Amino acid sequence: MSDAHAAPKTDAAAHAARNILARLYAPITAELAQVEAMYRAELTSDDPYIANLLAYVEDYSGKKLRPALLLLAGKACGRITRDHIVLGVVAEMLHTATLVHDDILDDALLRRKRTSINALAGNEVSVLLGDHIFSHAFELSLDAGTPVGAREFSRAMARTCFGEIMQVHNRNHFELSEAKYLQIIEGKTAELYATSAMLGAHYAGADEKTARAFYDYGMNLGRAFQIMDDLLDLLGEEALVGKTLGSDIEKGKPTLPLIRHLQVAAPAAREAAMDAAKGGRRDELLRLLHETESFKYSAARAAGFVAQAKKGLELLPPGELRDLLFEIADFVLSREL
Amino acid sequence: MSDAHAAPKTDAAAHAARNILARLYAPITAELAQVEAMYRAELTSDDPYIANLLAYVEDYSGKKLRPALLLLAGKACGRITRDHIVLGVVAEMLHTATLVHDDILDDALLRRKRTSINALAGNEVSVLLGDHIFSHAFELSLDAGTPVGAREFSRAMARTCFGEIMQVHNRNHFELSEAKYLQIIEGKTAELYATSAMLGAHYAGADEKTARAFYDYGMNLGRAFQIMDDLLDLLGEEALVGKTLGSDIEKGKPTLPLIRHLQVAAPAAREAAMDAAKGGRRDELLRLLHETESFKYSAARAAGFVAQAKKGLELLPPGELRDLLFEIADFVLSREL
Repeated sequence: MSDAHAAPKTDAAAHAARNILARLYAPITAELAQVEAMYRAELTSDDPYIANLLAYVEDYSGKKLRPALLLLAGKACGRITRDHIVLGVVAEMLHTATLVHDDILDDALLRRKRTSINALAGNEVSVLLGDHIFSHAFELSLDAGTPVGAREFSRAMARTCFGEIMQVHNRNHFELSEAKYLQIIEGKTAELYATSAMLGAHYAGADEKTARAFYDYGMNLGRAFQIMDDLLDLLGEEALVGKTLGSDIEKGKPTLPLIRHLQVAAPAAREAAMDAAKGGRRDELLRLLHETESFKYSAARAAGFVAQAKKGLELLPPGELRDLLFEIADFVLSREL
Repeated sequence: MSDAHAAPKTDAAAHAARNILARLYAPITAELAQVEAMYRAELTSDDPYIANLLAYVEDYSGKKLRPALLLLAGKACGRITRDHIVLGVVAEMLHTATLVHDDILDDALLRRKRTSINALAGNEVSVLLGDHIFSHAFELSLDAGTPVGAREFSRAMARTCFGEIMQVHNRNHFELSEAKYLQIIEGKTAELYATSAMLGAHYAGADEKTARAFYDYGMNLGRAFQIMDDLLDLLGEEALVGKTLGSDIEKGKPTLPLIRHLQVAAPAAREAAMDAAKGGRRDELLRLLHETESFKYSAARAAGFVAQAKKGLELLPPGELRDLLFEIADFVLSREL
C-alpha cells in the first residue's frame, strides 16, 4: 500500500522522479506499455456507472513499481512472456484495490491531488469497488500458464491485509517494538513487492534459489521504501507540510523515528515526545527526535535494507539489468529527503 | 449476500427451520461436517488478535446453503470428492467475507443477534478482515484439482460486487424497473448460489449441459430467495418488526413489492406510497401495496422462479437427490411468511 501516504511532491520534484524512472524502466518500456494497456482494458464494465468509477480509480496507478519489478526480474532471469504481462496487470490491480480500501481507512479526501473515490462515491461504493477489483484481479491471475501466480498473489494479499490489520490494531501504540513495526510494514508494503519480483523471476524460468533471492530483494526494497515513506511523512517538505504534524502521527500510526526515540531516550525526553505527538506540536517533536538521532537511525535502517537487497542479487551475472535493479534499490533512498 | 437481511426469527421458528434443513441435508451430513471442520480450521491465524476476529465471524455462517447446494449437486451427479469439500469451504468463506463487508454497508449493529464485527472492531478492521478472508478463500480455491473452481468463484464474486454496487447506486430510486431489480438480486444473491450448484455438478463429472442446468437452478433459487427476503423484510413478524418500516425501505433499498406497486398503481396511489415510504408510515404503505396486490405479485414471481428451478432439473434421473433439490427449492417459498 505504501506510496499511498507519500508526502505531496512539488511539480519539479515529481518531474525529476519521472525522468529517473523512465531511465530505470528503459529495458521494459514496451512491456510496461502493454501492462498499462491491459490494465486499462481490464478496468472496464458494460455498466456506465461502474465503468466511470473504474476509469476514475485507474489514475490511482502511479509509479507502476510492482509491475516494473516483475518485468525487470523477468528480463534479468530470461525472457518476458505473456504471463509476465498478465501478472504485472494483476499486481497493479491488487495495488489499486488496496488503495481504494485505504481511502476508507484513512478517510482520505484526496488521492494524487484529486478527490478520493470514497469522498466522491461514498464508503459503501468504495468497499464494493475494491472488492470488485480484487475479484477481477484474482480471476485474471488464472490466465497465467500455471497457477503459481494466482496462488502467490492471493497469499500475498492475505499477508498484506494482516499487516494492515496489525497497523490499525496498534494505533496510538507508539511504544511498539521495532520488530512489530517491521512485521507491519513487511505485510502492508513489502509483501506485494516481494511477490511481484519473485514471480517475475519464476515465470522467466529461474530456479527456486534465484526466485527466492528476488523475493528477498523485493522484501528489502519494500521495507526500505516504507521506512523512507515514514520519514518523509514526518520531515516532509516544509512548504507543503507546513506546521502540522506528519499525518501518520496524527492518525496514531507508530512509525520508526518515534518508535526508535521511545526506545533510546531518557524518561523525560520520552514523555516530552509523547506529549508533543499527542498535542500535535511538530517542531518540538522533530527537535526531540533529532536529539536522539532517531531520524538518522531510521535512514540508516532503510539504507541497511537497500544494501541487503543489492547483496542478495549478487548471484545474478553482472550486467545492465543487475545494475538497474541495484539502482532502483538506491532510488528508494533518494526520495525527496 | 441475501440472508444478511432476513427478518429476525423467533426461536421456535428457527428451530423448525433447522429441523427441515437437517432432513434436506441428510444425504450430505458427513460431508457438510467436513466442510464445517475445514472452514473453522481455515479461519484461524497465528496472531491472537486476528484469530479472535476470525473466530468471531465464523459464527456468521448460518444455513450453509451454498456448500449444501454444492455438495447435493455433486451427489446428484456422481460422487462427492475432496474438491467438493474444498470448494464448499470457499463458497462459505466468500459468503462470510461479503457479510463482514455488508455490515459496513448497512452500518449494522447486530448480526445473528450478536454485536456485528464493525460495531465490535470498527469499520477499518472490518474492511481489512473481509479482504483477508476473500484473499484466503481465493488461495484455498486453488487447492481444487483444476482451476475451474477458482475461476468461477472469482468471476462470481466480481458479479456479486457489481450487483451490490448497483443496489447502492439505486438507493432511494424506488421507481426502478423490475428488470433492473432482478439484475441487482441476480448479482448480489443468486450468482453465488448458481456458481456453487454448477461447480458441485462439474466436479462430479457432469457434462456441460447438466452443469449449466445446475447453474440455472441456483440462479432461480437465489432469485426466489431474495424476493422472499424482500417480502419478509416488509411483512416480517409483527411482534419483532414492530411498527417500524421494513429496514430495506428505511435504507432506501428498492424491493419488488414497492417497485411493482409503483408500476401498476394509479398516480394518486403511487404518490401516497412514496410519501408513506419516505415518511416511514408502515401500516399505510402495507395497505396501499395490498390494494394493488403487489405482495401477491411478488410471491407469485418467487414461486415462478422456484418452478423454473425445478423444471430445469428434470433432466436428472428421478430419485431421492432430485426430490431433495426440488424440496429445497420449495423450502425457499415457505420461509416464515
